[in-house]
Amino acid sequence: MPELIHPLDAYRAQAQQRMDPAAWAYLNGGAVDELSVQRNTDLFREIRLVPRVGVDVGHLLTSQQMFGIDVAFPLLLAPTALQRLFSDAGEQGTVEGARSTDTVTVISMESSVATRELAESAGPFLQHLYIQRDRKLTEDLVRMAEETGARGIVVTLDNPVPGIRYRQDAGMTALPAGIGRANLESGGVPTLTGGYLDPTVTWADIEWLVSLTDLPVIGKGILHPDDADRAVRAGVGGVIVSNHGGRNIDTVAHPMECVRAVTESVAGRVPVLLDGGIRRGTDILKALALGADAVLIGRPYVWGLAAAGAAGVADVIRILQDEFHAAMAMCGAATLADITPALILGSDQ
Amino acid sequence: MPELIHPLDAYRAQAQQRMDPAAWAYLNGGAVDELSVQRNTDLFREIRLVPRVGVDVGHLLTSQQMFGIDVAFPLLLAPTALQRLFSDAGEQGTVEGARSTDTVTVISMESSVATRELAESAGPFLQHLYIQRDRKLTEDLVRMAEETGARGIVVTLDNPVPGIRYRQDAGMTALPAGIGRANLESGGVPTLTGGYLDPTVTWADIEWLVSLTDLPVIGKGILHPDDADRAVRAGVGGVIVSNHGGRNIDTVAHPMECVRAVTESVAGRVPVLLDGGIRRGTDILKALALGADAVLIGRPYVWGLAAAGAAGVADVIRILQDEFHAAMAMCGAATLADITPALILGSDQ
Amino acid sequence: MPELIHPLDAYRAQAQQRMDPAAWAYLNGGAVDELSVQRNTDLFREIRLVPRVGVDVGHLLTSQQMFGIDVAFPLLLAPTALQRLFSDAGEQGTVEGARSTDTVTVISMESSVATRELAESAGPFLQHLYIQRDRKLTEDLVRMAEETGARGIVVTLDNPVPGIRYRQDAGMTALPAGIGRANLESGGVPTLTGGYLDPTVTWADIEWLVSLTDLPVIGKGILHPDDADRAVRAGVGGVIVSNHGGRNIDTVAHPMECVRAVTESVAGRVPVLLDGGIRRGTDILKALALGADAVLIGRPYVWGLAAAGAAGVADVIRILQDEFHAAMAMCGAATLADITPALILGSDQ
Amino acid sequence: MPELIHPLDAYRAQAQQRMDPAAWAYLNGGAVDELSVQRNTDLFREIRLVPRVGVDVGHLLTSQQMFGIDVAFPLLLAPTALQRLFSDAGEQGTVEGARSTDTVTVISMESSVATRELAESAGPFLQHLYIQRDRKLTEDLVRMAEETGARGIVVTLDNPVPGIRYRQDAGMTALPAGIGRANLESGGVPTLTGGYLDPTVTWADIEWLVSLTDLPVIGKGILHPDDADRAVRAGVGGVIVSNHGGRNIDTVAHPMECVRAVTESVAGRVPVLLDGGIRRGTDILKALALGADAVLIGRPYVWGLAAAGAAGVADVIRILQDEFHAAMAMCGAATLADITPALILGSDQ
Repeated sequence: MPELIHPLDAYRAQAQQRMDPAAWAYLNGGAVDELSVQRNTDLFREIRLVPRVGVDVGHLLTSQQMFGIDVAFPLLLAPTALQRLFSDAGEQGTVEGARSTDTVTVISMESSVATRELAESAGPFLQHLYIQRDRKLTEDLVRMAEETGARGIVVTLDNPVPGIRYRQDAGMTALPAGIGRANLESGGVPTLTGGYLDPTVTWADIEWLVSLTDLPVIGKGILHPDDADRAVRAGVGGVIVSNHGGRNIDTVAHPMECVRAVTESVAGRVPVLLDGGIRRGTDILKALALGADAVLIGRPYVWGLAAAGAAGVADVIRILQDEFHAAMAMCGAATLADITPALILGSDQ
Repeated sequence: MPELIHPLDAYRAQAQQRMDPAAWAYLNGGAVDELSVQRNTDLFREIRLVPRVGVDVGHLLTSQQMFGIDVAFPLLLAPTALQRLFSDAGEQGTVEGARSTDTVTVISMESSVATRELAESAGPFLQHLYIQRDRKLTEDLVRMAEETGARGIVVTLDNPVPGIRYRQDAGMTALPAGIGRANLESGGVPTLTGGYLDPTVTWADIEWLVSLTDLPVIGKGILHPDDADRAVRAGVGGVIVSNHGGRNIDTVAHPMECVRAVTESVAGRVPVLLDGGIRRGTDILKALALGADAVLIGRPYVWGLAAAGAAGVADVIRILQDEFHAAMAMCGAATLADITPALILGSDQ
Repeated sequence: MPELIHPLDAYRAQAQQRMDPAAWAYLNGGAVDELSVQRNTDLFREIRLVPRVGVDVGHLLTSQQMFGIDVAFPLLLAPTALQRLFSDAGEQGTVEGARSTDTVTVISMESSVATRELAESAGPFLQHLYIQRDRKLTEDLVRMAEETGARGIVVTLDNPVPGIRYRQDAGMTALPAGIGRANLESGGVPTLTGGYLDPTVTWADIEWLVSLTDLPVIGKGILHPDDADRAVRAGVGGVIVSNHGGRNIDTVAHPMECVRAVTESVAGRVPVLLDGGIRRGTDILKALALGADAVLIGRPYVWGLAAAGAAGVADVIRILQDEFHAAMAMCGAATLADITPALILGSDQ
Repeated sequence: MPELIHPLDAYRAQAQQRMDPAAWAYLNGGAVDELSVQRNTDLFREIRLVPRVGVDVGHLLTSQQMFGIDVAFPLLLAPTALQRLFSDAGEQGTVEGARSTDTVTVISMESSVATRELAESAGPFLQHLYIQRDRKLTEDLVRMAEETGARGIVVTLDNPVPGIRYRQDAGMTALPAGIGRANLESGGVPTLTGGYLDPTVTWADIEWLVSLTDLPVIGKGILHPDDADRAVRAGVGGVIVSNHGGRNIDTVAHPMECVRAVTESVAGRVPVLLDGGIRRGTDILKALALGADAVLIGRPYVWGLAAAGAAGVADVIRILQDEFHAAMAMCGAATLADITPALILGSDQ
């Protein structure tokens, strides 16, 4: 019987073959026992769909406006640090693969290629950052984002201190020569993680960040509905429901366990996105069914990058697009608005 | 300790030995990760029976009228495409095995032996079809069904686009020489799947199909109760609760998770059938307990066909009959009407 | 680390070593896929106890009157057929082991040693029977029970037809020479199972059986509360909640899933017993907590018999007694009346 | 990919290598099938956290007053018997490791080094005891505790009789020469376990114990809320929710399944502690979220002791402190009071 290997898993296997074990552990590992890393993907398998039939799905509409961008497909690339650890092309490959598929990239503050370099070849992108102890450096990053044409700022909220990552620590204690955080060169961040994290950040700091710029500020790493509401009242232009890919605290709730409450709390005031464990087209559809406006992927596009550069990134995105389109058609959803909680078995509404 | 091998699993093993791996993958595989293929059988194992005692079960009555046919036993053969991939006899073996056991076959539109040939040796049968982009070809199929003596039309509703089947695609990209869709010769369907699928089909098309013929039209692939009601209002003469054997969309709801709501929605206006994962006599009894009037099997009879031709098909049916009879007697059900939700642990009614 | 082998599992292993594989399959196998055989033991592991402390458990009272017998410990030996298949001593070993531990045996109608022989060395015992097609033979068995001093009649209700047992059938098609159903010699039962079963038995037949004798008639094989009530109204003197050890119908409810409803339905009119999957002292306590007055064991005592004859039977009983006594003390239950639903996590009452 | 081994598991592995298998079985084994031993750790993995963000967690406050002691971190060392079985240093290593990390030890009545010896080098400690059949000996232990400066008495309530421990019994039947219960030398306890247990202890005896001393008496081994209330009314100064590490009765409820009800029953009158299965910093946080004021660990610190003496004990404590601090920060909890049920997914309050 021909072996069943999902194409994303094939990319994963190729990436692992090409990558240094320490880099692999850094990319794919997570907090403590990595139970949440595993569960992030597993939970989607337990959510069941109740398709509708008798609907004309000859033309599927999947585009929407978000942060002033035409988002053709409800999937963005999540900020992932230090991509030259995984591929010589690094973030350059990512933004090219994204651009060729009309996909919005969130460029990490910790990019190993500077945003100023990436911006030339990138399509529409968002700039990610942490509010650092050095607020001036934080403001510099905002100005850099504005100057390079970023369409928004993604600020991580769920990382006040470094995550405890035993596997990562066992593999890598310092960055290889020549690979660094290009956006922070002046900041002098010597250790692999955490030196720039500020555990004292509060909503007042988010309000300050919002006040700095006309760009929409999108808060990433929210799981509790009250925090989502607080973020909106602080002026954010979007919310990303995320458990940081299971990298920060183990046995954390799954974003899909939180997204409906967050969506109800946000009540349409700003877009709600979700990341964590998205590996199939049906995962995207399920996230949208429970209220997300779009999802982000992280590790999967890096597998594509590591295996085949920009073409690999683009192919990973297309695989998910094909699956999502098939899932929409099979569920009788011709537009994103047709993807409602009623498609999920056991959802009340 | 003598090994425990269920006789259907023995047929499965024999069939696999005899069959080309690509054909085996085509028959037994499904959508994406094949989670629903596996769960279709597994879920039945979790449903528990609460037998009744002190009932005279000396004579079991299992026959009923359905679509104007005397159905001796509440099991039909589901439409399965291209059976000459699995056995030289192809659908000829199936209809002979079915006839020898008084079982109704649903002949697939994609039969590798033409319905016109099969009709001579078949007992009462139903003709399956898709509403194709070419509506004239669809109408031709209805006329062919009428002329060959089909007792009803089974129309697939849950396949607007091809399912994503990675294992199948890895094994077979074109049909072997000499094997084709005999009912569609003039239709020119070059690829293995999907060329004839029309994603624009709506309930209006079902109404059109119903209007074409006096034969009952049975809608296959309904999971949502509102779709069941809509189908009945469109004039169908029966509903088949099905997730297409897990072949179309992965992580889909199990038919047994949907059948009670469908039955309540249909409210006796037309028969309700169920397919997907039926492998034991108790599975049949459980489906009937939750409201189905009969079930269909797919892969199991093809295993019998591949292993032993018509005799294998008949034997598979008889194994399930024996188990179902024993299950009825053990549950204190002397007639089909005695098979109620009260036999299922945790059912309210 | 020293291996952890429960002493009952040690007996099981020894028994398997000494026993013909076909006999082993007959003893330990069950219906169809044997899922219920496995779940019968597994479910007990999922039920959790909430012990009480600060109670004087220096003296544990475990005796009660039942069917006019002083039952020292709430455990009886279930009827098990043809024990000479498992040990040369056969039922003689069982009744001796039972007597040495003050335990009541239910002698099977299908005993391979005649009850008339066993009665001499047995302590208080009950006689098991099926209502056979030949009602005269059934009455003869009742008279035999009376004459040999049986203290009650156990009638199986849940076996109208033979169970489908693929593993058993694969191993043994006829009884070995010299081993037969000693109580039925005149009855001529040629096949291994089922020849004496009558699928037409109704509650009227139970009423007839009750009318034949002053001995209490105990109905075995009840899972539904309405059947328990009907049995009491038919005049039975006891009810055994049982799924026949998973031997008759697969995926049947567990006796522990049914016992509370049965007990509430019986409402103290007659004793309620439970069998199926009892392997630990805590299992006994859990059954009593949910309302059973006593339990029966089957396979475990036969393992003791096969491994070490009467001494093995006695030792199996003592192991369960020791565990039960420890469980009572740990739960703060000094008497059987202290074993209430409140000891089970999640029980309302 | 670098192997993922949690540092506590590394200590476990080192300890096993150094330890006699019988001692290992005694330390790590439990009652009957050891299902509760396993589940004690497993259940924590199923409890999920819903972190809060936007909180200043730059300074974490984890200290509290308990039994008149400044407890810097909400973790104590549970009483563990006969530690010279596991390390030559025995309890001396434990109290030193505890003192170096400002941790309160509960010294077991069955310590293999006398409390009088340990008290010199120990920090603040509690003295554990059983109410023994010889009440005079019990009173002597209270006086010894007072004289050696113990800050409280921990009395075990959940061990009226010895637990049934098949693995332990298979490995060790008597103590090695030179290792004994130093606090009980005059008591003459010849067997490994149980000789000093009194099954007749009732709440009246607890009241008597409370009346003997001005030290707080902490009742250990409570799972039922009514027992917690009864203990408080008997005058205890603290309650430890515990199932005795799964060593006494198998398939017992998990302390985490009982702690909220206990806490509600105690209603703040005395501190509530919890032990059983704590292996990660998130486990501590979860226990506190459901109402515990602190937790105790047993086996893990003994692994540290066996692997590396006092330094190992201290390191095990520090590993859990680091993880707990990270968990607090990640959950947006700056103080112990911020750790509420709202952090647990699915908790109502």
